Amino acid sequence: MSSVQFDHVTVIKKSNVYFGGACISHTVQFEDGTKKTLGVILPTEQPLTFETHVPERMEIISGECRVKIADSAESELFRAGQSFYVPGNSMFHIEADEVLDYVCHLEG
Amino acid sequence: MSSVQFDHVTVIKKSNVYFGGACISHTVQFEDGTKKTLGVILPTEQPLTFETHVPERMEIISGECRVKIADSAESELFRAGQSFYVPGNSMFHIEADEVLDYVCHLEG
Repeated sequence: MSSVQFDHVTVIKKSNVYFGGACISHTVQFEDGTKKTLGVILPTEQPLTFETHVPERMEIISGECRVKIADSAESELFRAGQSFYVPGNSMFHIEADEVLDYVCHLEG
Repeated sequence: MSSVQFDHVTVIKKSNVYFGGACISHTVQFEDGTKKTLGVILPTEQPLTFETHVPERMEIISGECRVKIADSAESELFRAGQSFYVPGNSMFHIEADEVLDYVCHLEG
């Protein structure tokens, strides 16, 4: 069960903006030196494509989205409380049906 | 001189979304119990109107915006590093010329 908040963290004030604002995130740094991004994806008419460098776990905090990972044929629905995994040096396509809050765990 | 980050804070994972995503913020809680919001305002064709309850100081982290406070006749331009103050139980109109990162200091 994920907490509703991150405690004892550092937050970078400047946001990361993708696709003209359809995806906005803030970088969160933890005491052990690891980083995650906390973000929002807005509903879009076309899926957004993100490339990964390190492996990522995308945890859905609220909302729901359809996701295709790499070149999989089928999209899968993910809802609040669920996560999906994307390998490093890969990509995923994501389409939010409503405002989506997520945490991106950089697993590399 | 404002820091680029907040240290030793709590961040609420779920965002606050206004105007269909034209303004998105996250609530940040400090060790002394005070709260601020860290957010982004996207460029819009019309100014966005926000009502205040407690007095607020809006600090511009990056970008620039035109602001009219309450029923002032003139709008004023604010840039990164500047702040504007809004009384409690009042309102302001804000229009971002580019992606705007801000911190809202709740002064009440």
